[in-house]
Amino acid sequence: MGGHFSRFLGRHLVCELHGISPGLLRDKELLRNILLRAAEASGSTVVGDYFYKFEGDMGVTGVVVVAESHLSIHTWPEYGYAAVDVFTCGTHTDPWRALELLRDELKPERVEVTEMTRGVLEQPQQLAERIGLLALGSQVDSRVAHPGVRHGLRGGAGAVLRED
Amino acid sequence: MGGHFSRFLGRHLVCELHGISPGLLRDKELLRNILLRAAEASGSTVVGDYFYKFEGDMGVTGVVVVAESHLSIHTWPEYGYAAVDVFTCGTHTDPWRALELLRDELKPERVEVTEMTRGVLEQPQQLAERIGLLALGSQVDSRVAHPGVRHGLRGGAGAVLRED
Repeated sequence: MGGHFSRFLGRHLVCELHGISPGLLRDKELLRNILLRAAEASGSTVVGDYFYKFEGDMGVTGVVVVAESHLSIHTWPEYGYAAVDVFTCGTHTDPWRALELLRDELKPERVEVTEMTRGVLEQPQQLAERIGLLALGSQVDSRVAHPGVRHGLRGGAGAVLRED
Repeated sequence: MGGHFSRFLGRHLVCELHGISPGLLRDKELLRNILLRAAEASGSTVVGDYFYKFEGDMGVTGVVVVAESHLSIHTWPEYGYAAVDVFTCGTHTDPWRALELLRDELKPERVEVTEMTRGVLEQPQQLAERIGLLALGSQVDSRVAHPGVRHGLRGGAGAVLRED
Protein backbone atom coordinates (compact mmCIF):
# COMPACT_ATOMS: atom_id res chain seq x y z
CA MET A 1 0.00 0.00 0.00
CA GLY A 2 2.97 2.30 0.60
CA GLY A 3 3.40 2.60 -3.13
CA HIS A 4 0.33 4.77 -3.37
CA PHE A 5 2.05 7.52 -1.45
CA SER A 6 4.98 7.80 -3.85
CA ARG A 7 3.31 7.83 -7.27
CA PHE A 8 3.74 11.09 -9.07
CA LEU A 9 4.26 12.25 -12.62
CA GLY A 10 6.97 14.87 -12.49
CA ARG A 11 9.59 16.76 -10.55
CA HIS A 12 9.71 20.53 -10.60
CA LEU A 13 12.70 22.51 -9.35
CA VAL A 14 11.82 26.07 -8.42
CA CYS A 15 15.22 27.77 -8.49
CA GLU A 16 16.27 31.18 -7.23
CA LEU A 17 19.66 32.22 -8.64
CA HIS A 18 21.20 35.31 -7.05
CA GLY A 19 24.46 37.11 -7.67
CA ILE A 20 24.79 36.59 -11.42
CA SER A 21 26.76 38.97 -13.63
CA PRO A 22 24.20 41.41 -15.13
CA GLY A 23 25.70 41.13 -18.61
CA LEU A 24 24.81 37.44 -18.78
CA LEU A 25 21.24 38.16 -17.74
CA ARG A 26 20.70 40.50 -20.73
CA ASP A 27 22.08 38.13 -23.37
CA LYS A 28 19.06 36.46 -24.97
CA GLU A 29 20.94 34.16 -27.32
CA LEU A 30 23.33 33.03 -24.61
CA LEU A 31 20.48 32.26 -22.21
CA ARG A 32 18.55 30.42 -24.93
CA ASN A 33 21.61 28.33 -25.72
CA ILE A 34 22.16 27.54 -22.04
CA LEU A 35 18.53 26.61 -21.42
CA LEU A 36 18.41 24.37 -24.51
CA ARG A 37 21.55 22.58 -23.35
CA ALA A 38 20.14 22.33 -19.83
CA ALA A 39 17.04 20.64 -21.26
CA GLU A 40 19.24 18.11 -23.02
CA ALA A 41 21.32 17.59 -19.88
CA SER A 42 18.17 16.68 -17.96
CA GLY A 43 17.37 13.98 -20.52
CA SER A 44 14.41 15.91 -21.96
CA THR A 45 13.39 16.25 -25.61
CA VAL A 46 12.97 19.83 -26.83
CA VAL A 47 9.82 20.50 -28.85
CA GLY A 48 9.96 24.31 -29.02
CA ASP A 49 11.12 27.50 -27.34
CA TYR A 50 10.28 31.16 -27.01
CA PHE A 51 12.67 33.85 -25.78
CA TYR A 52 12.09 37.58 -25.42
CA LYS A 53 14.49 40.43 -24.59
CA PHE A 54 13.05 43.43 -22.85
CA GLU A 55 14.20 46.87 -23.95
CA GLY A 56 17.46 48.55 -23.00
CA ASP A 57 19.08 47.39 -19.78
CA MET A 58 16.22 45.10 -18.86
CA GLY A 59 16.27 41.32 -18.75
CA VAL A 60 15.23 38.30 -20.73
CA THR A 61 12.30 35.95 -20.40
CA GLY A 62 12.32 32.57 -22.04
CA VAL A 63 10.76 29.15 -22.04
CA VAL A 64 11.87 25.85 -23.53
CA VAL A 65 8.96 23.47 -24.01
CA VAL A 66 10.06 19.85 -23.75
CA ALA A 67 8.10 16.65 -24.26
CA GLU A 68 8.56 16.18 -20.51
CA SER A 69 7.14 19.64 -19.50
CA HIS A 70 9.24 22.85 -19.52
CA LEU A 71 12.24 24.90 -18.46
CA SER A 72 11.92 28.65 -17.98
CA ILE A 73 14.09 31.61 -17.07
CA HIS A 74 13.18 35.18 -16.18
CA THR A 75 16.01 37.58 -15.41
CA TRP A 76 16.40 40.85 -13.53
CA PRO A 77 19.91 42.15 -14.37
CA GLU A 78 19.46 45.08 -11.99
CA TYR A 79 19.30 42.62 -9.09
CA GLY A 80 21.67 39.98 -10.54
CA TYR A 81 18.72 37.59 -10.19
CA ALA A 82 17.23 34.84 -12.35
CA ALA A 83 14.06 32.87 -11.61
CA VAL A 84 14.52 29.43 -13.14
CA ASP A 85 12.06 26.54 -13.30
CA VAL A 86 12.97 23.04 -14.39
CA PHE A 87 9.92 20.77 -14.61
CA THR A 88 10.51 17.31 -16.06
CA CYS A 89 8.48 14.12 -16.08
CA GLY A 90 9.33 10.47 -16.39
CA THR A 91 12.01 8.30 -14.84
CA HIS A 92 14.40 8.96 -17.75
CA THR A 93 14.89 12.62 -16.75
CA ASP A 94 16.78 14.32 -13.92
CA PRO A 95 16.02 18.03 -13.50
CA TRP A 96 19.01 18.43 -11.17
CA ARG A 97 21.35 17.85 -14.11
CA ALA A 98 19.81 20.84 -15.86
CA LEU A 99 20.38 22.94 -12.77
CA GLU A 100 24.00 21.83 -12.55
CA LEU A 101 24.58 23.07 -16.10
CA LEU A 102 22.85 26.36 -15.34
CA ARG A 103 25.04 26.86 -12.26
CA ASP A 104 28.19 26.07 -14.19
CA GLU A 105 27.31 28.56 -16.91
CA LEU A 106 25.75 31.41 -14.93
CA LYS A 107 27.93 31.11 -11.80
CA PRO A 108 25.42 32.48 -9.30
CA GLU A 109 26.75 33.41 -5.85
CA ARG A 110 23.75 31.84 -4.18
CA VAL A 111 21.20 29.24 -5.26
CA GLU A 112 17.97 28.27 -3.54
CA VAL A 113 15.99 25.30 -4.80
CA THR A 114 12.59 23.98 -3.86
CA GLU A 115 11.74 20.61 -5.37
CA MET A 116 8.03 20.05 -5.92
CA THR A 117 6.50 16.74 -6.86
CA ARG A 118 3.84 17.26 -9.51
CA GLY A 119 0.89 15.03 -10.34
CA VAL A 120 0.72 13.03 -7.15
CA LEU A 121 -1.85 10.43 -8.10
CA GLU A 122 -2.63 9.07 -4.67
CA GLN A 123 -2.60 11.10 -1.51
CA PRO A 124 -3.00 10.05 2.09
CA GLN A 125 -6.52 11.50 2.33
CA GLN A 126 -7.67 9.80 -0.85
CA LEU A 127 -6.17 6.55 0.23
CA ALA A 128 -7.69 6.85 3.68
CA GLU A 129 -11.09 7.59 2.16
CA ARG A 130 -10.75 4.69 -0.20
CA ILE A 131 -10.02 2.24 2.58
CA GLY A 132 -12.77 3.69 4.76
CA LEU A 133 -10.79 5.39 7.49
CA LEU A 134 -12.26 8.81 6.86
CA ALA A 135 -15.63 10.09 5.77
CA LEU A 136 -14.55 13.44 4.41
CA GLY A 137 -15.64 15.19 1.25
CA SER A 138 -13.29 15.64 -1.65
CA GLN A 139 -12.98 19.35 -0.95
CA VAL A 140 -10.91 18.70 2.13
CA ASP A 141 -7.89 18.08 -0.04
CA SER A 142 -8.12 21.53 -1.51
CA ARG A 143 -7.47 23.17 1.80
CA VAL A 144 -4.80 20.98 3.27
CA ALA A 145 -3.00 19.33 0.43
CA HIS A 146 0.32 20.36 -0.95
CA PRO A 147 2.37 18.99 -3.82
CA GLY A 148 5.14 17.52 -1.70
CA VAL A 149 7.61 20.31 -1.15
CA ARG A 150 11.23 19.56 -0.37
CA HIS A 151 14.03 22.04 0.03
CA GLY A 152 17.71 21.66 -0.56
CA LEU A 153 20.70 22.56 -2.62
CA ARG A 154 20.84 19.04 -3.99
CA GLY A 155 17.86 16.98 -3.06
CA GLY A 156 18.42 13.84 -5.11
CA ALA A 157 15.77 11.86 -6.84
CA GLY A 158 13.19 11.31 -4.09
CA ALA A 159 10.43 8.95 -5.05
CA VAL A 160 9.87 7.77 -8.58
CA LEU A 161 6.77 7.10 -10.59
CA ARG A 162 5.83 3.51 -10.39
CA GLU A 163 2.82 1.48 -11.23
CA ASP A 164 1.43 -0.80 -8.56
CA MET B 1 13.31 47.24 8.81
CA GLY B 2 10.35 44.92 8.44
CA GLY B 3 10.07 46.00 4.85
CA HIS B 4 13.17 44.07 3.97
CA PHE B 5 11.42 40.80 4.72
CA SER B 6 8.59 41.44 2.28
CA ARG B 7 10.39 42.60 -0.85
CA PHE B 8 10.03 40.17 -3.69
CA LEU B 9 9.60 40.36 -7.44
CA GLY B 10 6.89 37.85 -8.29
CA ARG B 11 4.26 35.41 -7.19
CA HIS B 12 4.15 31.90 -8.57
CA LEU B 13 1.14 29.63 -8.15
CA VAL B 14 2.03 25.96 -8.53
CA CYS B 15 -1.37 24.40 -9.25
CA GLU B 16 -2.44 20.78 -9.28
CA LEU B 17 -5.80 20.29 -11.03
CA HIS B 18 -7.35 16.86 -10.67
CA GLY B 19 -10.60 15.38 -11.94
CA ILE B 20 -10.86 17.21 -15.26
CA SER B 21 -12.79 15.75 -18.21
CA PRO B 22 -10.19 13.99 -20.42
CA GLY B 23 -11.65 15.48 -23.60
CA LEU B 24 -10.77 19.00 -22.45
CA LEU B 25 -7.21 17.94 -21.67
CA ARG B 26 -6.63 16.79 -25.28
CA ASP B 27 -7.96 19.95 -26.93
CA LYS B 28 -4.92 22.06 -27.79
CA GLU B 29 -6.77 25.04 -29.21
CA LEU B 30 -9.21 25.15 -26.31
CA LEU B 31 -6.39 25.03 -23.76
CA ARG B 32 -4.42 27.68 -25.62
CA ASN B 33 -7.46 29.94 -25.67
CA ILE B 34 -8.10 29.39 -21.96
CA LEU B 35 -4.47 30.04 -20.99
CA LEU B 36 -4.30 33.22 -23.08
CA ARG B 37 -7.48 34.49 -21.43
CA ALA B 38 -6.13 33.49 -18.02
CA ALA B 39 -3.01 35.56 -18.70
CA GLU B 40 -5.19 38.56 -19.49
CA ALA B 41 -7.32 37.95 -16.41
CA SER B 42 -4.20 38.12 -14.25
CA GLY B 43 -3.38 41.54 -15.67
CA SER B 44 -0.39 40.24 -17.64
CA THR B 45 0.68 41.19 -21.16
CA VAL B 46 1.13 38.28 -23.57
CA VAL B 47 4.32 38.35 -25.64
CA GLY B 48 4.21 34.85 -27.14
CA ASP B 49 3.01 31.27 -26.72
CA TYR B 50 3.88 27.72 -27.70
CA PHE B 51 1.48 24.76 -27.52
CA TYR B 52 2.06 21.17 -28.50
CA LYS B 53 -0.36 18.23 -28.77
CA PHE B 54 1.07 14.78 -28.19
CA GLU B 55 -0.06 11.95 -30.45
CA GLY B 56 -3.32 10.06 -30.18
CA ASP B 57 -5.00 10.02 -26.80
CA MET B 58 -2.16 11.83 -25.10
CA GLY B 59 -2.22 15.32 -23.66
CA VAL B 60 -1.15 18.84 -24.42
CA THR B 61 1.77 20.91 -23.24
CA GLY B 62 1.77 24.64 -23.57
CA VAL B 63 3.31 27.86 -22.34
CA VAL B 64 2.21 31.47 -22.57
CA VAL B 65 5.12 33.87 -22.15
CA VAL B 66 4.01 37.16 -20.64
CA ALA B 67 5.96 40.33 -19.95
CA GLU B 68 5.46 39.47 -16.27
CA SER B 69 6.87 35.85 -16.54
CA HIS B 70 4.77 32.87 -17.72
CA LEU B 71 1.77 30.58 -17.51
CA SER B 72 2.09 26.90 -18.37
CA ILE B 73 -0.09 23.82 -18.61
CA HIS B 74 0.81 20.16 -19.03
CA THR B 75 -2.03 17.66 -19.20
CA TRP B 76 -2.43 13.92 -18.60
CA PRO B 77 -5.93 13.02 -19.91
CA GLU B 78 -5.49 9.44 -18.71
CA TYR B 79 -5.40 10.73 -15.13
CA GLY B 80 -7.74 13.70 -15.58
CA TYR B 81 -4.82 15.81 -14.37
CA ALA B 82 -3.30 19.13 -15.39
CA ALA B 83 -0.16 20.72 -13.97
CA VAL B 84 -0.59 24.48 -14.17
CA ASP B 85 1.86 27.24 -13.26
CA VAL B 86 0.96 30.91 -13.06
CA PHE B 87 4.00 33.10 -12.41
CA THR B 88 3.43 36.85 -12.54
CA CYS B 89 5.44 39.84 -11.42
CA GLY B 90 4.58 43.37 -10.42
CA THR B 91 1.86 44.84 -8.25
CA HIS B 92 -0.47 45.25 -11.26
CA THR B 93 -0.96 41.48 -11.61
CA ASP B 94 -2.88 38.91 -9.60
CA PRO B 95 -2.12 35.28 -10.51
CA TRP B 96 -5.15 34.09 -8.52
CA ARG B 97 -7.44 35.66 -11.13
CA ALA B 98 -5.86 33.48 -13.77
CA LEU B 99 -6.47 30.43 -11.63
CA GLU B 100 -10.11 31.41 -11.11
CA LEU B 101 -10.63 31.49 -14.87
CA LEU B 102 -8.90 28.13 -15.29
CA ARG B 103 -11.13 26.60 -12.62
CA ASP B 104 -14.26 28.02 -14.21
CA GLU B 105 -13.31 26.64 -17.62
CA LEU B 106 -11.78 23.27 -16.74
CA LYS B 107 -14.01 22.46 -13.76
CA PRO B 108 -11.53 20.29 -11.84
CA GLU B 109 -12.92 18.23 -8.97
CA ARG B 110 -9.96 19.11 -6.81
CA VAL B 111 -7.41 21.90 -6.86
CA GLU B 112 -4.21 22.21 -4.84
CA VAL B 113 -2.21 25.41 -4.93
CA THR B 114 1.17 26.32 -3.53
CA GLU B 115 2.03 29.99 -3.72
CA MET B 116 5.74 30.71 -3.99
CA THR B 117 7.29 34.13 -3.67
CA ARG B 118 10.00 34.55 -6.30
CA GLY B 119 12.93 36.92 -6.24
CA VAL B 120 13.05 37.67 -2.54
CA LEU B 121 15.61 40.45 -2.44
CA GLU B 122 16.25 40.51 1.28
CA GLN B 123 16.19 37.47 3.49
CA PRO B 124 16.46 37.11 7.23
CA GLN B 125 20.00 35.72 7.05
CA GLN B 126 21.20 38.50 4.76
CA LEU B 127 19.58 41.11 6.92
CA ALA B 128 21.04 39.58 10.07
CA GLU B 129 24.47 39.53 8.49
CA ARG B 130 24.12 43.10 7.39
CA ILE B 131 23.25 44.33 10.86
CA GLY B 132 25.99 42.23 12.42
CA LEU B 133 23.96 39.59 14.27
CA LEU B 134 25.55 36.69 12.45
CA ALA B 135 28.98 35.99 11.08
CA LEU B 136 28.01 33.38 8.54
CA GLY B 137 29.19 33.01 4.98
CA SER B 138 26.90 33.62 2.05
CA GLN B 139 26.69 29.90 1.35
CA VAL B 140 24.51 29.37 4.38
CA ASP B 141 21.50 30.61 2.48
CA SER B 142 21.94 27.93 -0.11
CA ARG B 143 21.30 25.18 2.35
CA VAL B 144 18.52 26.59 4.46
CA ALA B 145 16.69 29.11 2.38
CA HIS B 146 13.38 28.61 0.68
CA PRO B 147 11.37 30.90 -1.56
CA GLY B 148 8.56 31.61 0.87
CA VAL B 149 6.08 28.82 0.38
CA ARG B 150 2.45 29.22 1.33
CA HIS B 151 -0.35 26.77 0.75
CA GLY B 152 -4.04 27.33 0.26
CA LEU B 153 -7.03 27.23 -2.02
CA ARG B 154 -7.11 31.02 -2.09
CA GLY B 155 -4.17 32.61 -0.42
CA GLY B 156 -4.79 36.25 -1.24
CA ALA B 157 -2.10 38.70 -2.12
CA GLY B 158 0.37 38.16 0.71
CA ALA B 159 3.18 40.64 0.69
CA VAL B 160 3.79 43.02 -2.16
CA LEU B 161 6.91 44.37 -3.75
CA ARG B 162 7.81 47.63 -2.22
CA GLU B 163 10.81 49.84 -2.17
CA ASP B 164 12.02 50.97 1.22
